[in-house]
Amino acid sequence: MNIKITGSGSYIPDTIETNESFHNHEFLNVDGSTINSPNEVIVEKFKAITGIAERRYAKTHHTASDLGFFAAEKAIEDANIDPETIDYIIVAHNFGDVKHNTIQADIIPSLASRIKHSLRIKNPKCVAYDILFGCPGWVEGVIQAKAFIKAGMAKRCLVIGAETLSRVIDKHDRDSMIFSDGAGATIVEATDDNGGILAHETATYTYDEAYYLYYGNSNNQDLCRDTRYIKMEGRKIYEFALNNVPKAMKACLDQSGADISEVKKIFIHQANEKMDEAILKRFYRLYRADIPENVMPMSIQKLGNSSVATVPTLFDLVKNNKLENHSLNQGDVVIFASVGAGMHINAIVYKY
Amino acid sequence: MNIKITGSGSYIPDTIETNESFHNHEFLNVDGSTINSPNEVIVEKFKAITGIAERRYAKTHHTASDLGFFAAEKAIEDANIDPETIDYIIVAHNFGDVKHNTIQADIIPSLASRIKHSLRIKNPKCVAYDILFGCPGWVEGVIQAKAFIKAGMAKRCLVIGAETLSRVIDKHDRDSMIFSDGAGATIVEATDDNGGILAHETATYTYDEAYYLYYGNSNNQDLCRDTRYIKMEGRKIYEFALNNVPKAMKACLDQSGADISEVKKIFIHQANEKMDEAILKRFYRLYRADIPENVMPMSIQKLGNSSVATVPTLFDLVKNNKLENHSLNQGDVVIFASVGAGMHINAIVYKY
Repeated sequence: MNIKITGSGSYIPDTIETNESFHNHEFLNVDGSTINSPNEVIVEKFKAITGIAERRYAKTHHTASDLGFFAAEKAIEDANIDPETIDYIIVAHNFGDVKHNTIQADIIPSLASRIKHSLRIKNPKCVAYDILFGCPGWVEGVIQAKAFIKAGMAKRCLVIGAETLSRVIDKHDRDSMIFSDGAGATIVEATDDNGGILAHETATYTYDEAYYLYYGNSNNQDLCRDTRYIKMEGRKIYEFALNNVPKAMKACLDQSGADISEVKKIFIHQANEKMDEAILKRFYRLYRADIPENVMPMSIQKLGNSSVATVPTLFDLVKNNKLENHSLNQGDVVIFASVGAGMHINAIVYKY
Repeated sequence: MNIKITGSGSYIPDTIETNESFHNHEFLNVDGSTINSPNEVIVEKFKAITGIAERRYAKTHHTASDLGFFAAEKAIEDANIDPETIDYIIVAHNFGDVKHNTIQADIIPSLASRIKHSLRIKNPKCVAYDILFGCPGWVEGVIQAKAFIKAGMAKRCLVIGAETLSRVIDKHDRDSMIFSDGAGATIVEATDDNGGILAHETATYTYDEAYYLYYGNSNNQDLCRDTRYIKMEGRKIYEFALNNVPKAMKACLDQSGADISEVKKIFIHQANEKMDEAILKRFYRLYRADIPENVMPMSIQKLGNSSVATVPTLFDLVKNNKLENHSLNQGDVVIFASVGAGMHINAIVYKY
C-alpha cells in the first residue's frame, strides 16, 4: 500500500494588494518610534529581501473556512471522488475565522466542521478536526493523514490549509506586508499505485524558540493594549530556519532512500524569498551537489506568505502547469518542506 | 502491543464560583427581553436540570495553557517517565489562551508549543500540536495518539485537555452558569502489558448540527455586536446527544469484544447531569441490561462543564480514589465517551 495525493485544489483570492498600497501606512519601530526612511524606501527594501511585490486579501465577507471550502471543492473534483467516502477532514490554520474588521478568532465550531457542513457531507464517520501547527500545518496534516491510513483508521483524507492573515496584521508593523490570504487542499489516500509518501520528518523547537512568532501589541503604542496582532522576530526566525530546515530535509530524504539527484521539485513554505534561497543552497551543500535549474518553484512574489496555504497552493499551481517553467511528471521525486510558528519544521519526500 | 494510559494528572482551579454568585446577574432571553422570574428561581431551576452547584474559575493571571501545563506535570510524574522521551504532545482546547478581561483568543504559538516550552523539553522530535474538536477533544487526542502508535510513528504521547470557559461566557445568558475551567492530562503509550485501548469510535455530525454550539452575541443587545461568546442550542444538543451518544458507545463496546456486564465505569463528558443520566439509561436499554450501581462517576455538581478537561479530570479523580464510592481495579473495562461542539461524538473502550 502506498499513500498518494490524488487530487488538489487551491483558492487564491482575487483582491490584489500591491506594495504601493503600503506607501501611505504609518510604519513604526517596535518601541513606537518613527522609522527614519520614507515609506517608498521601506517598501523597496522589503521587496528586495522578501521578494514580495503583491499579496492577496480575501473578500471582506469571506472567512478562512470559506477559502478552505472553495479549495476543498476543487480538490474533491480533481480527485473525482464521492465526498461521502472521505474518512477524515483535517484543517490546518492558526487564527480561525476572523471576520473583517473584528478582532476575535472564531474557532467554535472548528473550521473542519464548518467546511464539512459547507460540503454538505452527511456521513458521520467522516471525522473533521482542526490542527494548529503554525505555517507547517498543511504538511503536518498530510503526515497525520499518513498516520491514520497506516494505522488502518482511514483510507481517504481531505487535508486543507486555510488562512486569512490580512485580518490579524498590525498596520504599523513593516512585517504586515509579508502576510496574505489563501487556501490549498488535497485528497490523500491509500492506493496500490506506485509512489506516494516515501518519508516524513517533523520537529518542534520550543525551548528557546516557542515565541519567535506570537500574538503581540501594535507598534503604535496609542492603540488598545488588549488588542493583539501577529508578530515575529524576523532575524531569529531567519537564522533558525537556515540552521534547521536543510537538516530536516536531509534527514527526510536520506530516510526515503531517494538520491539527491532524483529530486525534481522542492515545494517550500513561501515566507521570504531570500530565506528560501539560502535554505536551498545549504540543503544542496549538505550533499555537495549543485542546485538544479528550476528545482524550487516560488509564488511569493505574487502571493505573499499565506501560511498553511502556501505549500498546497504552490503544488496545485505546478501540478496544473500554472507556474512558468515548472511542471510535474509521473515518478518525479519532490520534497514538501515548511517552517513556522511553534517553532515547527517538517518535510515530506514524495514520489509523484 | 497494547496502548495504555500510564499516567494521569489534573488541575482543578481553587477559585470556587457558587450558584449564589449568579444571583445578581442580569439574565436575559436570546432576544434581549427580560426573564420573568427572580434570579433565585432561575438558578434553582438551572441546578435541578444540570446538577451544577458550583464550578471552578482559573486564577486571573492563568491561561488555558498554564492549566494544561500544571496537569501535564502531574501526569508525567505519575507515569514516572523522562519528559524527553515523549514523542507527541497533543493539546485539545476550543478557545485558546484568553487573558482575563480580554476578548481575543491567543493560539499563536499553539498551546502545545507553550506547554512543551513550560515543561522545558528540549527534544525536537517531540512533536507538539493542538486539536480543535469541541468538548470531545481530549478523547479524540487519545485516539490520535493511538493512530501514531499503531502507525509506528510514536511510542509515548502526552494528551492534554485544557480550557478556560469562564473567559468566553456571556454573563447575560443563563447557560453561562454551566461553564467552568480546568485541565486534565494523560500519558498514553505502547506497552506489552495486558489491557489498554480495546476499541474506539468517532463521529462528526455537521449537516444540520454544525452550529449547535457557536460563537455568538450577548443576549444583552446593548453590548458590542462584534464581541462574541460561547452560545448553545441547549434543547437541540440534548436531543442530539440522547439520540447518538448511546449508539456510538454501543458500536464501540461491540467492536471491543467486551460484554456489557464487564463495564465497570463510564467516564462521560460532564455537560448536564440529567442528560448524562438519560444517556446512561438509553445505553443500558440497548443491551436490555440493568444499570449497575456507581457505574457513572460524576463531577459536574462541584466542577461544572470544563469542556475537554472533564473526562481526563474525572478519570484522574477516580483513579486516585478522590471521588467517593468510586475506584478502579486492574482489568476493569471502562468507557470514555464525549459529545460536543462540531458536533462530535466519540468513545473509547479501555481495559484498565
